[in-house]
Amino acid sequence: MTTNTRAYAATSATTPLGPFRFNRRTPRNDDVSIEILYCGVCHSDLHTARNDWGWSSYPVVPGHEIVGRVTAVGADVKNFKVGDHVGVGCMVDSCGHCPSCNQGEEQHCAEMFTMTYGAPDRIDGSMTQGGYSDNVVVKEHFVLRMPDGLDLKGAAPLLCAGITTWSPLKNWGVKAGSKVAVVGLGGLGHMAIKLAKAMGAEVTLFTRSPGKEADAHRLGAAHVVVSTDEAQMAAVASTFELIVDTVPYAHDLNPYVPTLAAGGTIALVGFLGDLEPPLNTMPMVMGRKALAGSLIGGIKATQEMLDFCGEHGITSDIEMIRMQDINDAYERMLKSDVKYRFVIDMASLKEEA
Amino acid sequence: MTTNTRAYAATSATTPLGPFRFNRRTPRNDDVSIEILYCGVCHSDLHTARNDWGWSSYPVVPGHEIVGRVTAVGADVKNFKVGDHVGVGCMVDSCGHCPSCNQGEEQHCAEMFTMTYGAPDRIDGSMTQGGYSDNVVVKEHFVLRMPDGLDLKGAAPLLCAGITTWSPLKNWGVKAGSKVAVVGLGGLGHMAIKLAKAMGAEVTLFTRSPGKEADAHRLGAAHVVVSTDEAQMAAVASTFELIVDTVPYAHDLNPYVPTLAAGGTIALVGFLGDLEPPLNTMPMVMGRKALAGSLIGGIKATQEMLDFCGEHGITSDIEMIRMQDINDAYERMLKSDVKYRFVIDMASLKEEA
Ligand SMILES: [Zn+2]
Ligand SMILES: [Zn+2]
Ligand SMILES: [Zn+2]
Ligand SMILES: [Zn+2]
Repeated sequence: MTTNTRAYAATSATTPLGPFRFNRRTPRNDDVSIEILYCGVCHSDLHTARNDWGWSSYPVVPGHEIVGRVTAVGADVKNFKVGDHVGVGCMVDSCGHCPSCNQGEEQHCAEMFTMTYGAPDRIDGSMTQGGYSDNVVVKEHFVLRMPDGLDLKGAAPLLCAGITTWSPLKNWGVKAGSKVAVVGLGGLGHMAIKLAKAMGAEVTLFTRSPGKEADAHRLGAAHVVVSTDEAQMAAVASTFELIVDTVPYAHDLNPYVPTLAAGGTIALVGFLGDLEPPLNTMPMVMGRKALAGSLIGGIKATQEMLDFCGEHGITSDIEMIRMQDINDAYERMLKSDVKYRFVIDMASLKEEA
Repeated sequence: MTTNTRAYAATSATTPLGPFRFNRRTPRNDDVSIEILYCGVCHSDLHTARNDWGWSSYPVVPGHEIVGRVTAVGADVKNFKVGDHVGVGCMVDSCGHCPSCNQGEEQHCAEMFTMTYGAPDRIDGSMTQGGYSDNVVVKEHFVLRMPDGLDLKGAAPLLCAGITTWSPLKNWGVKAGSKVAVVGLGGLGHMAIKLAKAMGAEVTLFTRSPGKEADAHRLGAAHVVVSTDEAQMAAVASTFELIVDTVPYAHDLNPYVPTLAAGGTIALVGFLGDLEPPLNTMPMVMGRKALAGSLIGGIKATQEMLDFCGEHGITSDIEMIRMQDINDAYERMLKSDVKYRFVIDMASLKEEA
């Protein structure tokens, strides 16, 4: 039986989000039905609502930082029961048999993973709709277990911002004593600092403007370097094993390359587009330095990240909003006027007709 | 006692190389004195002779693919004796105590390794002079042992072209069954194919123009892909763990990124400069793909490469020249008119006054 669902949707690239009703699909034997309690607000939500990437279809219900409570499970579901606290991130399905899926790296699925919103369901072709809604139905493999004792509101952004920054830290081997830098202090950047610090790394924040020292230190950064200050940049030459660059727009990477230690990597997690000004390869060749991209992370890694956050008491710094405030929240996000992530309280949806 | 040395040198950026006499330094207790038999001709020699990088000092004797015979050893030399066949590559000294030196990655020495030619000696400050000469005096740590049975003429280019391509293959974990691509079929590219093939990889050559199939297959490539042919490029989408890019000038890397498998790397070994047209990060982020640089390799790795080549009978395809032919050889190199490396027979120097 389908579930009539309260939500907020964008109905075109140029209209604000507003109330929307639709039916979730009839749960399958391997599906988990989830009452959504909280949903984080990611930049991707805004880009999709406004069709910034050109692939949006309407109406679309954004939201892929979902935390909720299990209300029903299909006959084949093994690992969840009614009442469990669970999470859903950016993926709700994948092919399940390609080399990447076999390695638990569903985000690299050769047939493209199914996005939590705005993608055709692999079985019935209906468009997926995200977490700005009161419930969701998700295949068990893509449902995460929320660790006990973690604040569920602050944990919602872990499902995208958390795994997006966790994945490069793990992939490039950050461990106790590693020297890690983070570029940008927003939703992604503040998570990168918290996670790297909890892994035992010595964390440096690169920022373009002074004034973020107090917050950076509170979040776990040992050092703050103003990237426009040549003397400060020279002082950290050949230092970092990994730089996690969270900046979402085109920016000059050349000043950062010399701050990598030999063999170090800049991992881009925020920017999709042409690298301008052009990257100069000289310092990369001289020191076996690399520039790489990184996209969220696999389901297994996401669960590991959540369990790690449970152990270390790590959540996102959030500002709670009502569903009705989403359009204002988008405007504030565009001005980076949030510390550091908006999370929607889905109880507010009950006020809608 | 210094050694009066016959050589060929560039005396300015605009004059051809010609006969030159100078004194090698008095050998120290940890030095090996070497009679040079053969010296490969590297693009770096030409760039240095003509001051293309702006850091040349004159007169300069190029040459860093040196093979010769030990004629004397200092009192502290442990691993070589008179008569041994030895090699010298791009480095003749380094600080010896920085993290990179401690890891055997002298090419990343924090205080910059001492280049085989055109660099100040770390002890007496005299300028090093390279292998276009009849002898050289080199600190034991930087002297390589030539494996028995390997043709010494064809082995000379292993000291630069060999280690330059070996290093990324080893660093990015190429092994039996790996899918590796090589961009460019010159001195570096033909060595990359031979080495990757001998490691058991399935090797693909990317080339901009048809007609290189027969040579590529002979060298060990399983496949040849014309990089300007969109259908051929689409057929190798998401294929390669590693692409070794040997092209020495600015070129568009964007067509190659989608041919990397998830987690794959393009290693640049030939190009120093600005990446134009700009790299688009989208496919890098989507598939955790990386662009990296790589510079020669450490002394330990160089010896491992030489030993591997000894076991597998791998040498460079060469064209022998006399020292007196070097200026013509440079002109032919600029037209890629060599299969695939010039090697100078130093016996020809004896004809000089
Ligand atoms: Zn997101
Ligand atoms: Zn798949
Ligand atoms: Zn060279
Ligand atoms: Zn050193």
